[in-house]
Amino acid sequence: MKKFLCGVDVGGTKLSAGLFEEDGTYIDSRIVFNHTTLGCDGITDSIVVIVRELLDAHGLDESLLWGIGVGIAGHINSKKGLIITSSNFKSCFRNYPLRSKLARKFRTNIIVDNDANAQAYGEFKFGAGKTFSNIVFITVSSGVGSGIIVDGNLVRGMAGTAGEIGHTIIDPYSEIECSCGNKGCLMSISSGHYLPQLYLRYLKRGYVSQIGISEDNLDAFDGRMLEEGVKRDDEISKHVLNDSASAVGVGLYNLFQILNPEIFILGGGLVNIGEIYIELIEKRFLSLVRHMMYDRVEIRSSALGCNAGLLGAAALTLE
Amino acid sequence: MKKFLCGVDVGGTKLSAGLFEEDGTYIDSRIVFNHTTLGCDGITDSIVVIVRELLDAHGLDESLLWGIGVGIAGHINSKKGLIITSSNFKSCFRNYPLRSKLARKFRTNIIVDNDANAQAYGEFKFGAGKTFSNIVFITVSSGVGSGIIVDGNLVRGMAGTAGEIGHTIIDPYSEIECSCGNKGCLMSISSGHYLPQLYLRYLKRGYVSQIGISEDNLDAFDGRMLEEGVKRDDEISKHVLNDSASAVGVGLYNLFQILNPEIFILGGGLVNIGEIYIELIEKRFLSLVRHMMYDRVEIRSSALGCNAGLLGAAALTLE
Repeated sequence: MKKFLCGVDVGGTKLSAGLFEEDGTYIDSRIVFNHTTLGCDGITDSIVVIVRELLDAHGLDESLLWGIGVGIAGHINSKKGLIITSSNFKSCFRNYPLRSKLARKFRTNIIVDNDANAQAYGEFKFGAGKTFSNIVFITVSSGVGSGIIVDGNLVRGMAGTAGEIGHTIIDPYSEIECSCGNKGCLMSISSGHYLPQLYLRYLKRGYVSQIGISEDNLDAFDGRMLEEGVKRDDEISKHVLNDSASAVGVGLYNLFQILNPEIFILGGGLVNIGEIYIELIEKRFLSLVRHMMYDRVEIRSSALGCNAGLLGAAALTLE
Repeated sequence: MKKFLCGVDVGGTKLSAGLFEEDGTYIDSRIVFNHTTLGCDGITDSIVVIVRELLDAHGLDESLLWGIGVGIAGHINSKKGLIITSSNFKSCFRNYPLRSKLARKFRTNIIVDNDANAQAYGEFKFGAGKTFSNIVFITVSSGVGSGIIVDGNLVRGMAGTAGEIGHTIIDPYSEIECSCGNKGCLMSISSGHYLPQLYLRYLKRGYVSQIGISEDNLDAFDGRMLEEGVKRDDEISKHVLNDSASAVGVGLYNLFQILNPEIFILGGGLVNIGEIYIELIEKRFLSLVRHMMYDRVEIRSSALGCNAGLLGAAALTLE
């Protein structure tokens, strides 16, 4: 009998649930925005409501699902179905047993995992990684995360926190402190959250902003402003774009040495700036890898588009 | 019927073959030292001779082996049984089909792999990693290498070159150039081959050697001299030991974020300096990992002792 996939994406701005055919074809989705103000159980209840609504709207029973996959930003112990911690919400999840809570409401397989792992698995099943089995998916957005697939299996590690490449240290003498408290983490020298600090470095060196950014309105310098600045030929924006891409290029290079994957798949807000950013990453990567690459590693952008989070979560049910 | 394991360790100074019981118990070994001057086929012939000698001495036929595992320093494509390249020998191996060459001489399973992978697998089967399934084995010797085991399987990657953590970049502004041509590779700021350059940094800063090392005899500063210098309270030696261990600690931390293993197993010449070195590595690791470690990662030294290379290669036949 024909079965379906259900994915839930618990993000920092929206909570959504999507229904897909087995081959990843989108059917329908539901979305709510007020979930971040709710407590843990409140968020769980919201998930139950929108998934049930989605199933009812299509006259489906959960027995017709391969399962429900939930992707959530944070440290997730997928084996145990626990949210160890997640910083996106008002209520702090601390070892919250989301899987068992949802299992009481749906008689189907429930999988809970980190959103980057989910997206990596989605790319593997339905996206840019479809023809590969050794994949690293990297998302450069407000932070930097990754999902690693080795020989067709997600690498989760002991506690489930594998893939946190944003916190690998690649520049120990950087003056920028990461949210984790260390200095020189990949994410603190590349990702959206740190764009103001990356911009500030050039202001302090005496560069003049051509897009009206000063120390007083630094926080306005986000991903969109970066894209705008590059378009308007702002010298600092171009430097920041290059610095960010260059750091990600070093991150890719380190992952190449450690995992020797077949393909790097790039996603997230900064990557969506487009080819110019990806080309800068690739340039830095190739400048480091030189004679050490025997089989060419592919570098491509995500192919799942705007439903990447939902489809990734849904794909987990096929694991 | 009782079966045996045979391991071959093709090193830069010696070529050896060992025979073991299925549980890893050592039976006997053979060793030759002249192999590095031979051509590729000459080395292959030497392997055949010492393995045959070993089997004959115990009245064994290769049908009584689980197989013959060969560990060799270099880039190895284990899937294809090729030595892509290895720099330890006079004759350059370039895509040399060692497995098929040996398969013509022995009617048993032949596995060829990188020596660090072999040792990692040996630790997993018989050593410090016996009770774990997510393991990173790191060797800090003249260079730095590693073998990675995820869910009980060796991670080899596309071309077989996974685990090259020695070439991950953790200090892009380092002035020391690695043999690969990049700057700030983990191995170039921690391993035996670079000890003279690490020592030189302090001489240039005006430190005075208390063990008679100057710019003229820098090359004398090897692992043994480092150990000696630390014992004799030479200020520079103590700094170099700390710098090396600290770099390895950052390497471990990065691997922790990427793979979240259960255990790090340390081996190689510098690690044999002892507890003082391992404690410095651990100190740096813990200073970085802080609140980000949910389940405690073990850090232990290799438990296979002086037969680690042979037993590791032999263990590959049980994969």
